[in-house]
Formats: sequence, C-alpha cells, structure tokens
Amino acid sequence: MTYGKTFAAWRDNTPVWHAYTRHAFVQGLGDGTLPPEAFLHYLKQDYVFLIHFSRAWALAITKADTVEEMRLAAGTVNGLINEEIALHIKTCAAAGIDEATLFATQERQENLAYTRYVLDAGHSGDLLDLLAALAPCVMGYGEIGTHLATAKSSDTYADWINTYASSEYQQVCHDVGVLIDGAVARRIGDDPTTSPRWARLQTRFAMATQLEVGFWDMGLDP
Amino acid sequence: MTYGKTFAAWRDNTPVWHAYTRHAFVQGLGDGTLPPEAFLHYLKQDYVFLIHFSRAWALAITKADTVEEMRLAAGTVNGLINEEIALHIKTCAAAGIDEATLFATQERQENLAYTRYVLDAGHSGDLLDLLAALAPCVMGYGEIGTHLATAKSSDTYADWINTYASSEYQQVCHDVGVLIDGAVARRIGDDPTTSPRWARLQTRFAMATQLEVGFWDMGLDP
Amino acid sequence: MTYGKTFAAWRDNTPVWHAYTRHAFVQGLGDGTLPPEAFLHYLKQDYVFLIHFSRAWALAITKADTVEEMRLAAGTVNGLINEEIALHIKTCAAAGIDEATLFATQERQENLAYTRYVLDAGHSGDLLDLLAALAPCVMGYGEIGTHLATAKSSDTYADWINTYASSEYQQVCHDVGVLIDGAVARRIGDDPTTSPRWARLQTRFAMATQLEVGFWDMGLDP
Amino acid sequence: MTYGKTFAAWRDNTPVWHAYTRHAFVQGLGDGTLPPEAFLHYLKQDYVFLIHFSRAWALAITKADTVEEMRLAAGTVNGLINEEIALHIKTCAAAGIDEATLFATQERQENLAYTRYVLDAGHSGDLLDLLAALAPCVMGYGEIGTHLATAKSSDTYADWINTYASSEYQQVCHDVGVLIDGAVARRIGDDPTTSPRWARLQTRFAMATQLEVGFWDMGLDP
Repeated sequence: MTYGKTFAAWRDNTPVWHAYTRHAFVQGLGDGTLPPEAFLHYLKQDYVFLIHFSRAWALAITKADTVEEMRLAAGTVNGLINEEIALHIKTCAAAGIDEATLFATQERQENLAYTRYVLDAGHSGDLLDLLAALAPCVMGYGEIGTHLATAKSSDTYADWINTYASSEYQQVCHDVGVLIDGAVARRIGDDPTTSPRWARLQTRFAMATQLEVGFWDMGLDP
Repeated sequence: MTYGKTFAAWRDNTPVWHAYTRHAFVQGLGDGTLPPEAFLHYLKQDYVFLIHFSRAWALAITKADTVEEMRLAAGTVNGLINEEIALHIKTCAAAGIDEATLFATQERQENLAYTRYVLDAGHSGDLLDLLAALAPCVMGYGEIGTHLATAKSSDTYADWINTYASSEYQQVCHDVGVLIDGAVARRIGDDPTTSPRWARLQTRFAMATQLEVGFWDMGLDP
Repeated sequence: MTYGKTFAAWRDNTPVWHAYTRHAFVQGLGDGTLPPEAFLHYLKQDYVFLIHFSRAWALAITKADTVEEMRLAAGTVNGLINEEIALHIKTCAAAGIDEATLFATQERQENLAYTRYVLDAGHSGDLLDLLAALAPCVMGYGEIGTHLATAKSSDTYADWINTYASSEYQQVCHDVGVLIDGAVARRIGDDPTTSPRWARLQTRFAMATQLEVGFWDMGLDP
Repeated sequence: MTYGKTFAAWRDNTPVWHAYTRHAFVQGLGDGTLPPEAFLHYLKQDYVFLIHFSRAWALAITKADTVEEMRLAAGTVNGLINEEIALHIKTCAAAGIDEATLFATQERQENLAYTRYVLDAGHSGDLLDLLAALAPCVMGYGEIGTHLATAKSSDTYADWINTYASSEYQQVCHDVGVLIDGAVARRIGDDPTTSPRWARLQTRFAMATQLEVGFWDMGLDP
C-alpha cells in the first residue's frame, strides 16, 4: 500500500532513513536477539512518546484548513490514544508493569527532544511543517513492520511486528499519506519541489528521522 | 444527570445564564414559531462554529496533564467531528444545502468573536482557562435540550431538541463535568473558590455565556 | 515612503479598503466633527486592542524563521508596548481617565472579534498568515495619518493625526513592509501570486480590513 | 541583588542546582582551563539557544495577564535579541566566525531538547509553567556570573564573566524575579506552596535545570 508521493520524495532525499529503518534495534526485533529488558525499557519510553505524539496530532486538528483534514487528523489521534497507547498498556501489564508506573516513567532526553521538536514544528509553522515532522514515525514504523513481517527469523517480537504490519496500521499510513499529499497541493501547489518551502520541509523530515535514530539508540541503552 | 460541581458554581454566578438558556431563539424552537429561514441560517453558522469549536477541543488535548484528560477531550473532539457536524450536514442536506455550501458560509462576526475567544483562552492560559470558555456551549445546550423536551408545545424542531435531550448528549455533558472537576482539583485543589484564579475562570465562563447570547441574537437576524 | 509590494497587491485587491481608510470616523477626525465622547470611547477600546495586538506581534517573534524576522517583529512589539500604548495612557490621562480605568474597559465584541481573529491566524497558520492579518491595521493607520495630515480642516485631533503621519510611524510601516516582502519571498518565492496560498492570504487581509471597518463603526457607537 | 522569593524556593528544592552552577564547564571559565575550542563550540550552540530562548520569552508576552507582565517580558526579549545575541555575534566575529556561520550551526540534541521543552511548557500550560522553565537559565547565569567574578583565578574568560556579573544583567535577574513573584501571587495566591500546582512548577524548574547540566556537558564535548 502506497504512503503517497510527498512521503516518497521526502524519504528518498533523507540519507539517514536507512539508519533509522534498519537500525540494530530493528534487527534485534526481527531476529529475536533484542534483550527483553531493552524491549521493556523501549515500551515504557514509547508510552511517554505516544502521549506527546498524540498531543502533536491533536495540534494538527487545530491547524487544519478543511473538515477533511480535521477528520483525518482526528482519526489518527483516536487511533493513537484508544488503540496504540492501549496496546502498550496491555503489553506492559503482561510484563507486570501497570499504567501508573508507565505514566511515572522518567522521560529520557532523546525522547523529550523528539516530541518537543515535533510540537514546536507545529507551533512555529503551519500544518505542513507539522506533518513533515510527524511523517517519519508514522510511515517509518509502517515500513519496518512490513519489512520485518517477511524478514524476521524469530517470533519473539511477533506481536509488535504484527501490529505495524497489520492492514489496520498500513491503512493509517496510507491515510496519512493522503492527508499530506492533499495538504501540500492545497498550500504549495502541484509542483511543490520548486517552492522555497520544499527544502525547509525536507529538513524537518530529516531532523525527525535523525531523532528516530536517537530514539532507537536510547532503546539499546536501558 | 449532573454536570459537576464546578459547572454548577460557575453557572450560578453568571447572571446572563438565563438570558442565554431562555433566549427568544430557544423559545421559538420550543413553540415552533422560529421561522425556518432563521433556523437554516443558524444551522449554517453553527456548522462553521462547530469546526472552530472542534479545533478548541483539540487544543484541550494538547494542554492535558494526564492520559485520562486526553481521553475525555479526544472523545469530545470525535463526537463533534463525526457526530454533531455530521448531523448538521444531514439536516442541511434535507433542506437542500450541500456541504460545500455549508463550508463556504460567510462567518458572521458574532460567530467569529465567540470561537476565537475560546481558542485564545486556551492559547493564553492553561487547560482550565480553556475549559471555562468551552463549558457554556456544551452544558448550556444540554440544559436547553432537557428543558425543551418537557416544555415544548410544537414538534417542528423536535429533531434538534431530541439531539440535545438525548442520553448520548447528556452523557457528554456529564463526562465534560467530570473532566472539569478533575482538572480543577488537579490544578487548584479542593477549595478552588479561595484561589485568585477562581474569579478569572468565572469571568471567562461569563464572557463565553455572553457570546452565546450574541450567537442567538445573530440567529434571529438572518 | 513605500510599504512594500506585497501590501500594495493585497490592498489593491481588497474592495473594502476604501470603506476602512475613508470611514466616517476618519472623516470626523479630519474635520474635527467627531464628538469628544466618541473619541475617548475609541481610545479606551483601542487601548485594549493594542494589548492584544501586541500579543499577536509577540506571537510573530515565535514564528520567525530568521533572526532578522525576529528583530523586526520585536521592534514592533517594543514600539507598541512602550510607545503607542504609552501614548494612549497619556492622552487618556489628560482627559481624566487613569490606566486602571483603561485596563478595566469592558471589551466590545467588535474589538474582541478582531484581535482574536488575528491571534488565531497566527496559531492556525504560519508567519505569513499572521502578517496578512496584522498588516491592515499597521499600514491602514499609516495611510490614514498621511492622508489626514494634508486633508484635515481642523486641528482638534491634530495630535492623533501627527502620531500616524510622523516619520517614526511611517518608518514602522516601511519596516513591516520589508518584513512581509521578505517573509513572502522566503516562504512562497518570487512569484507568489501563482501560489495556492495567495488567495488565502488575500482573504485573511480582507477579513482583517473588514474587522477594521467594524472597529470604526463601534467607535461611532459609544 | 535578590532574585525573588519564588526563585529562592524553587532553587532550594532542586538538588541538581549545584551540579549546574558549579559544573566543570563553569570551573573552566573561572580558572581559564576551558579549551578555547570548547568555548567557541559552546558560543555557537548558545547562539542557537538564544534564538529559541527569545522565542520562548516572546511566547510569555502572549500569555501575560497584565500590561506590567507584558512590559517585563518584552524588556527581556529585547535584551536577548538586541544585546545578548549581539554580544555572541561580536565575540564570535572576533574569533573569525561570521553570523551566517553561526546561524548555520547544526543544533545539538542537548540544545534542542532544552529550548523545545521550555517552549512546550508555555504552550501546554500558562505563564507560570513557562516562567518555571525559563528561570533556571536566567537566574543560574546570574549566580554563576556573581560567583565567578569573585572566585575566578584567570582573566581568560573575563568578558563572559563580566557580562553576567554586570549590574545590567543582575537587574534583569531581579526584574524577572519580580515578574515571577507577581505572576505567582496573581495566579496562586500568597501561600503558593500549598497549591497542587506547586509540585508541578517545581518539577518544571528541576527539569530545566537538568537540561542546563546537559548543555554544559555538551559544551565540554565539541
């Protein structure tokens, strides 16, 4: 399922994309060598991440120009708060970590840097600045899920992999791609790469991708 | 169904509350004397209102301190975008007005003043400032619906009345009341009326109520 | 002194511009027929206006992309808070109105609608959306000052006229024009009128101009 | 010169305060052992820091409740943009680094994490949340300047030390202390430590202090 032409262009111009989607943490999920304590550490940080990432998607609703943009952003907020966060709570509960403990997780600097950068992209710019900073997480996890579903040599982290390889999650990536392509056409036009904004959006996308690499690095360092 | 103790206190200290909930526009809905062109004019303005009101509820998600606050605010955003706006589209469609026409409605100054005031309450203050400006619309419509369901002498506007008298809508008012009471306890404490913030929150609530009166006045002036 | 090419284009495509800059309130300032109570009523509302207008210019600093954009916006904030607001305080003091009374002025709906619209333009969009909503007030007063300095037939309101006709104020208009032209080039490019954003920016400028007309109307209605 | 009672309380409850104000980087400024390349690296990052820190102070203007709060925040914005940033430009120019190079500095994650955390404190909360995150930098540098002015054993970094030990900078710290004490009294009252907000404000202050330690650590790692 395609994630849209804008995402494809941004991704292809981001050299660090490979370091993110083929990170050692990702390899460890696929071959089952990721230590369980690293995975739980990651899940706890990711719970805090998802709270602030949901806030950033909610900010997107406030910056929409059309009802359709609002609907797509609101659908994502809903999916994050009521499904993805709920999944983390369930997975952590199975490992003996309750939600109060999750919520009390001390946020690591790598985590904080990423989500607050995304939020500031939205506050300082318009919806496109925000979407360029939101895209690497949404679509990157979609790519990683699809990749690992085929490439994995272990079922240790099959639940995690199936979540992001699922048709439900792939549909989210597709819908966000539609949202981004529409938002670009509406604000920049049919030939966005000639706009002075293009380089800036590309830079935001690359910075968020770099911060994803930092997040995986942190995951390996419980 | 109770709407919470904070709302009750704010309402009882707002002299203009009666002018809002017993406005001539409301009477006209109850006895069927409201001219159909005034009702359609109101519905079109209210469609634009709901877009910006949804943006303000989305802003509340970005200003929440707990996941529970986020969930309650996200549930309201969802109800507004996917149910209440959808109802307006359906009602207007039945009257021959399509959504593109609705979206192109020229926003009246009374409408603009109200929603932008609410949004600014959120941007300039914290979640409480925003909730104090959001409450009069949510709970006032709940009260009006309950009142008219009993007091109405005509079924001309029964659909509208039933929407806000419904147990679903009353549940929304109840949930928002829980959200407000919790947010007050979390930020001001158990005896909020002694805080210097109380008068300011009361003023915001009263200003939003006054702007509701202006909205009904506009409804009578197509 | 020129106010820049972007402003010139926006103004020339805004039919209501004439209704704003040649409003009956403006005529009354020029021929001295404006009743003193209308002028004082206007000054009090304008004091409240300037507070929120300064907040909107401060928001522009948070949305700048370059240090030069920050400097120009910060210079305007400074001029507003330390000079223009100070002038209102002085003029009102001479008429027996102290600052506490000024600050307690009940904000009129026409006033509130205008400033909150400008602030929301900034929060929902990027710096250009905000500048398009800020420009009509800044440059319109510059045009009115220049016009009345020549056209006035009475010295009753000479202090007010001289303020906006002064080389200091004309310099502010010039600098804001430079800021806008640079911000457009940086974000849209050298041929901005072909961008899908142009119509939207034009609409924001026209809406703010319309709200200026509403402000003068309010001024005549103490 | 006192920095106010709120700051004193926040500082005294922040164990990491000492690690910040007596950091090895600070010691190196005092005894002249800080390598020049570390100092220049720090200055370049601090230039980027000041840009975003100025944006956060500008955000404070938009969240003020009184004209006096606006004036104090606007004065700080002005000092940051027109004096402190200018000083960095001058110091770096003397070392052969022009402003274009400064502006192109690749922002380090430790730097980004700090300023975006402060901005988000403002966007998600009210003025107090923002001030609690702004205070450690302003006042900490004031304390460090005063301390090093007496304790220094080398004049290598005397210009830097004198900047923050100067009566002008000490006055800024004093004024910000007045702003904070007034903002607390206006929003929480005379006995703020009993409010549920107090712990939260304390946490924000401590987090910003921790991020200052991270910034010094980064300074030692060019």
